[in-house]
Amino acid sequence: MLSEFSLIDRFFARRAAASPPNAADGTLGIGDDCALLAPRPGEMLAISTDMLVEGRHFFAGIDPEALGHKTLAVNLSDLAAMGAKPQAFTLAFSLPKADEAWLAAFSEGLFAMAERYDCELIGGDTTSGPLNLCITVFGSVPPQLALRRDAAQPGDDVWISGTLGDARAGLGVQRGEWSADLADTATFRRALERPEPRIALGLALRGIAHAALDLSDGLAGDLLHILERSAMHATVDVDAVPRSAALRRLSPEIQRRCTLAGGDDYELCFTAPVAARASIEAAGRKVDVPVTRIGTISALQSAGDRPAIDWRDATGTPLTLTLQGFDHFHAD
Amino acid sequence: MLSEFSLIDRFFARRAAASPPNAADGTLGIGDDCALLAPRPGEMLAISTDMLVEGRHFFAGIDPEALGHKTLAVNLSDLAAMGAKPQAFTLAFSLPKADEAWLAAFSEGLFAMAERYDCELIGGDTTSGPLNLCITVFGSVPPQLALRRDAAQPGDDVWISGTLGDARAGLGVQRGEWSADLADTATFRRALERPEPRIALGLALRGIAHAALDLSDGLAGDLLHILERSAMHATVDVDAVPRSAALRRLSPEIQRRCTLAGGDDYELCFTAPVAARASIEAAGRKVDVPVTRIGTISALQSAGDRPAIDWRDATGTPLTLTLQGFDHFHAD
Repeated sequence: MLSEFSLIDRFFARRAAASPPNAADGTLGIGDDCALLAPRPGEMLAISTDMLVEGRHFFAGIDPEALGHKTLAVNLSDLAAMGAKPQAFTLAFSLPKADEAWLAAFSEGLFAMAERYDCELIGGDTTSGPLNLCITVFGSVPPQLALRRDAAQPGDDVWISGTLGDARAGLGVQRGEWSADLADTATFRRALERPEPRIALGLALRGIAHAALDLSDGLAGDLLHILERSAMHATVDVDAVPRSAALRRLSPEIQRRCTLAGGDDYELCFTAPVAARASIEAAGRKVDVPVTRIGTISALQSAGDRPAIDWRDATGTPLTLTLQGFDHFHAD
Repeated sequence: MLSEFSLIDRFFARRAAASPPNAADGTLGIGDDCALLAPRPGEMLAISTDMLVEGRHFFAGIDPEALGHKTLAVNLSDLAAMGAKPQAFTLAFSLPKADEAWLAAFSEGLFAMAERYDCELIGGDTTSGPLNLCITVFGSVPPQLALRRDAAQPGDDVWISGTLGDARAGLGVQRGEWSADLADTATFRRALERPEPRIALGLALRGIAHAALDLSDGLAGDLLHILERSAMHATVDVDAVPRSAALRRLSPEIQRRCTLAGGDDYELCFTAPVAARASIEAAGRKVDVPVTRIGTISALQSAGDRPAIDWRDATGTPLTLTLQGFDHFHAD
């Protein structure tokens, strides 16, 4: 069994030191009481923290390399949703035991993701305990260009990147709620285990999109956050919500459940004026991420009116859906 | 049982909003994908993260108000050790269930500490799972004044703030390793449950001390971090290590064990040139924290020489101590 310090050195500090913070600007990485970090000149640090718990966010026995990937990916997704450029992260985790093979694979997945997005490990904490992973990420963004949740405007289109629902479909297959063929099961599993943060899209949407967030808890719950912060309504065409070919092979009822209330998508949901449609299509093509319009923002009609989503099908017929976002204190 | 969002709103977001980040400078707090934060002009953010796990860092059934205090205090202690002024923090935690009374008391202890040090809650994450608390703190410091671990110089004095060992003595009483009278037990318990971060002292030591860190894992292990990062030796008089009157009533052997390898002290250990003695005494008086010289830094004698601590008693007699710092992957 490794001691805490040799463990950190072996799998984390050494790798962090392989691309050290810039000594010239006074930046300080792992090995002191604190890391020192500053945003780029004229910018601010965008900061987000996410905790992943075994049995809740991933199954015991998950491939540790995929877990390393996902743990950082879901945090980077929050930077993408803010239009921030990744800069650094801290990692705190508790582990039942210091299993070298597990740590080697986990750190491999983690650092592959970190290097792809030029995001430096600058600090951390390790302890023994039930498996729990907590990352705080730091990005840099000019504050006036940050993609906030409270910026949706009446008349805005509602957009989605990529496709929704595959991760939830994969969870359903794992749980035996439904089944799929081998190829579709692999598609769903990849979506569940290897989400890709939409960093490039978030950067491309700076100055174009109004409001944005990332879809971690399901479209129904997450879009509502934009509406509540912006004091707006939305009308959404559920048949326009983009789905993979694999998901389209499941029943229509399962498709709706997975796309609207699934969670774990890590796609961006954003609003933008009608005049920006061509710019957004171009941004999507530039970063090679499909973008799809699924609805419209409208103003609240009266003082007592509450932010809400009006669900319609492709014919415009109103639907009554009693979907709940993925809520971590409810049984899913 | 509360849902995640109402839980956050009720105990955390509302309290965070009570002293909102400054809208004028673009700062953004809880409620978006990321918080936005910048250090003071010309300064850098000092960043540290600590994870506290039930059964490892605190006992099940601990007073939740004290736990709220301690969770933030141990993180602020890292800022103190860097000479940084507290600015903000994020809180991620997993809880077995959303117990309202527990959360009310925990948040009370947490925010009392946050308000005392003007440290804003700017983000977080909550989930269900075994009790685990992860805080990342942000302070601001001019990089050239940061108290780093790698700055000890030959001839420096080694200093300690406050007294050491009471927290470990309290743990020993709780575990039945030794006993104390009611008043001393209360003293030890307060040290264990309510450490006070030495923020004011850290700020007062800017420009005076060379190297510094905070004692979380025991003097023997922690001082060694300064020596390793600075490539130095230290000679320490174990009888000079400051102890409370309560600890002095335990046996000499227990006193040494608690002061040198106890952990959970959250006092500062720092080095400074002999010429700074008067300034350091004055700094300690100014912030009302005792400061005590316990040893001396010296250069390594040869290329093969390893950083180490030479322990002496008050008569100057060398001692052979086989103390281990508090190591989170060893049985304590």
